[in-house]
Amino acid sequence: MSPDTFLKTLFTAAVAAADPARCLPPHLPAPPKGRTLVIGAGKAAAAMAKAVEEHWSGPLEGLVVTRYGHGMACKRIEAVEAAHPVPDSAGREASIRILDMIGGLTADDLVLCLISGGGSALLAAPAPGLSLDDKRDVTARLLRSGATISEINCVRKHLSAIKGGRLAVACAPARVVTLAISDVPGDDLSAIASGPTVADPTTFADALAVLAAYGIEEPAPVLAHLKAAAEETPKPGDPRLVRAETKLIATPQVSLEAAARAARDAGVTPVILGDSIEGEARDIALMHAGIARQVARHRQPASAPAVLLSGGETTVTLRGKGRGGRNAEFLLALTIALNGDAGIHALACDTDGIDGSEDNAGALAGPDSLARAKALGLDARASLADNDGYGFFAKLGDLIVTGPTRTNVNDFRAILIEDDSN
Amino acid sequence: MSPDTFLKTLFTAAVAAADPARCLPPHLPAPPKGRTLVIGAGKAAAAMAKAVEEHWSGPLEGLVVTRYGHGMACKRIEAVEAAHPVPDSAGREASIRILDMIGGLTADDLVLCLISGGGSALLAAPAPGLSLDDKRDVTARLLRSGATISEINCVRKHLSAIKGGRLAVACAPARVVTLAISDVPGDDLSAIASGPTVADPTTFADALAVLAAYGIEEPAPVLAHLKAAAEETPKPGDPRLVRAETKLIATPQVSLEAAARAARDAGVTPVILGDSIEGEARDIALMHAGIARQVARHRQPASAPAVLLSGGETTVTLRGKGRGGRNAEFLLALTIALNGDAGIHALACDTDGIDGSEDNAGALAGPDSLARAKALGLDARASLADNDGYGFFAKLGDLIVTGPTRTNVNDFRAILIEDDSN
Repeated sequence: MSPDTFLKTLFTAAVAAADPARCLPPHLPAPPKGRTLVIGAGKAAAAMAKAVEEHWSGPLEGLVVTRYGHGMACKRIEAVEAAHPVPDSAGREASIRILDMIGGLTADDLVLCLISGGGSALLAAPAPGLSLDDKRDVTARLLRSGATISEINCVRKHLSAIKGGRLAVACAPARVVTLAISDVPGDDLSAIASGPTVADPTTFADALAVLAAYGIEEPAPVLAHLKAAAEETPKPGDPRLVRAETKLIATPQVSLEAAARAARDAGVTPVILGDSIEGEARDIALMHAGIARQVARHRQPASAPAVLLSGGETTVTLRGKGRGGRNAEFLLALTIALNGDAGIHALACDTDGIDGSEDNAGALAGPDSLARAKALGLDARASLADNDGYGFFAKLGDLIVTGPTRTNVNDFRAILIEDDSN
Repeated sequence: MSPDTFLKTLFTAAVAAADPARCLPPHLPAPPKGRTLVIGAGKAAAAMAKAVEEHWSGPLEGLVVTRYGHGMACKRIEAVEAAHPVPDSAGREASIRILDMIGGLTADDLVLCLISGGGSALLAAPAPGLSLDDKRDVTARLLRSGATISEINCVRKHLSAIKGGRLAVACAPARVVTLAISDVPGDDLSAIASGPTVADPTTFADALAVLAAYGIEEPAPVLAHLKAAAEETPKPGDPRLVRAETKLIATPQVSLEAAARAARDAGVTPVILGDSIEGEARDIALMHAGIARQVARHRQPASAPAVLLSGGETTVTLRGKGRGGRNAEFLLALTIALNGDAGIHALACDTDGIDGSEDNAGALAGPDSLARAKALGLDARASLADNDGYGFFAKLGDLIVTGPTRTNVNDFRAILIEDDSN
C-alpha cells in the first residue's frame, strides 16, 4: 500500500465510524405508545434522518435542516437545506416549522432529535422580538472582539427560541431522545449545535457580562432583550428536562480510534495525540512536524513505522488573499517545516468533506511535495504567506475531494513516519 | 513529592545532564606533544573552561568568552564576559585576541574549542574591511525581513573572520577538538554558534541571493564584501579541516532523557514529544494542553500519571508591553487553555536559567493558578494579550529563579498529568 493510499484508508475509516448509517441504528430507543417525531439540524441531519427511517418499525414523521449540498432523499421525514455558517431565511422558516410541529405533544409521544455540527447556524429562530439581523449583527461583533466560542454561545443561547435547552422545554411532556454527533472539544453536549435539548448553566446576566467585557453596546434590541431577561434557559435539574436524554453516537475520538485500528491492521503503530487540538494552523503544523521528527530521529513517542493522529479544530488568521481552509493551511505549513524529510507523509482533511468554503476535504503531502512545487514554479512560503493552501495543493494535483460526507467530527490529521528499513 | 517539587526535580535533572562539570570530562582527548590552547564562546564557555582545567593533566592556556553574568572563576584559562544577543566591543576584542592566540600553531599543538549557544554573538569578529556596525545593521535588516535563521547564518558566516569554519582554518595545522553543547534543532553542528570549526556548505553567492530575496541593498560595505568573495568559507572535504573534529557533549535530547529517567524513578511515565519543537509560544501551548487532556481523558498517548516533555525554542510575536520570555508566555497560554483542569501541573524554563531578558528561568503553573490569580485581581487573558507572563507568575509567586546555569540546551517544558486515583 502506498503512503497516500494508507493515509486515505485511515481518513475513510475515520469518516465511516461517524457515518449515521452505521453508528446511529444501535442507539434508537423503543417506539413509544404515542407519536414519533423526528427533528434535527446539522451537517449530518439528512443522513441521520435517513438512518432513522431505515431502522424504525412504527409510524414516523418529522423535519430536519441540513446545510446546502448535504441533503439526502428521505421518504417519511422532510429534509430541507439552509445556509451555514451565516444563517438565512430557509433556516429560520424550518426552525419555526419545527417549533410548530412539537407544540402540543403528550407524555406518550417521543421526539427523536438529531443533532450534529453546524446545527447552531441552521436552527436560526430568534427569540420573540428579535430579528435574524439583530442576531447576525451581535454575532459578527462578538467574532471580531476576540470573545471565546463559549462566550459567544452564552450570548447566542439567550437570543434564541431553540438553543440552550429551549427546544427540549418546548417538547415537554414528551420524551426527548437526542442522538448527537460531536464536533466539539471534550464532547460537551451543551456546546454541540448550542445544545437545543441540553440544560444551560449560563444566564442572561452572564450574556450581558460578555457583551460588557468586550465593549459591545449594539444592537439595541439585543441589549434590551438580555436586560428584560424574560424567560431564562432551563438550568441543570430543571424538571422540564427530566425526560430529555442525549446519546453521543459519534465523536472525534471514536473516529481517531477507527483510524488507529486501520493503521494497526497495516502494521503501523498509531499515536493519538488528541481529539481536540486547537490553535493557529501553521503553528500546530510546526509542533506536528517536531513530533514527527522525534519519531524519525529518536523513536519517541513511538518507533517507525508510526502514524500520528489528531483531531480538533485549528484556526487560520487570514493575512493573504489565497484560497483554502484550515486543513490545507496546516498541511502547507507542515510541508515547509518538514522540508522534504524522507519518509514522512501527511493528510489533513475536514471529516465533513469541506475544508473551509472550498470544494475539497483537504489534501495530501509527502517528501517530494516541495521539489514538485518548485519544478512548477510554486513558492511554498509565498503560498503560505498568501493563505493559499488550496491553490498550492491544487496545482500539485494533491487535493482530496470527497464532496459532503454528511457527517462531521471535525478535523482529521494523519502523519505517517515510514520505517528507515523500507 | 508535590507536583511542583516533582517538576523542579525534572528540570534540575535536565540542566544537570548538560552541566559541563559532569558532561565534559569524558570527552577530553589525550594531551598533545606540543601546546594545548583552550578557546571558546557561548553561555557555557566559562563553565566548560573550568571543567577542562580541573580534568587536564598537562600545561594549558587560553581564552573563552561568555555572556555577562555567566562567568566563572578559572585559574589557567582567561574567561571574559561580553554582550549577548547584540554583540559589543568586549566580544570583538576577545575574538581578536583569540585569533591572535591561534596564529602560528604547529601540527604538534592541540586546540580545544568550547562551543555553546550564544557563541555566535559573542565571537564578533568582522571580516577585514567590515565594521561591527555593518554586521549589526545587516543582521537587524535580516531579522526584520522574515528570513529564516539558516538564511541569516549563511550571510553572517560570510561576513565573519571566525564563523563557518574559519576559526578551524586559522588553527591549522594544529589538531582542533571542538566540544559542543547543542541548542539547535537536529543538533546541526554548523548551526551551533554558527559553526566556527565546522565546514560550511554555503557560499558568498548564497549569501548574496539571500539579501536579494529579501530586497536588502544596504549597508554598502557588506554588499561589496560579499561581491568581492575574497576568501570562501571552508567546504566539506576541505583539507584544512582534516584535523578538526567535533564532539557533542550535551544536547536537548540527552537532557530530556535525563528528565525522563527522573520521572520513571518517581513512578511517572515520561512521554518525550520532541527535542526541537518550534512555533508561536501560545499556539504550541494550546497543542500541549490538547495532548495533556488526551492523557487525562483517553489515556493516550500514555496513561496517567504521565509527564509530557519537550524541548526546542518557541517564538513570541510581541503585541503588548508586558515582561517575560517565551517560557512564561507558553505557560500563561497553557494555564488559560487548561482552565483549571484538575491534576495537571506544568513547568516551562529556559535551561540557560534566563527566560528572555528577565531574571527568571521560567515558572510553574497548576490547577489553582487561575483561581489564585483571580483572587489577586489578575486577568490571565489580559496578561497574555500584554505578553506579561513574567508579571503574571511573579504576582502569583510562581517564578522559578535559578540565575545563569552556565549551560544551554534551549527550552525545557514538563507537563504532569496526575492519576485520577491520587
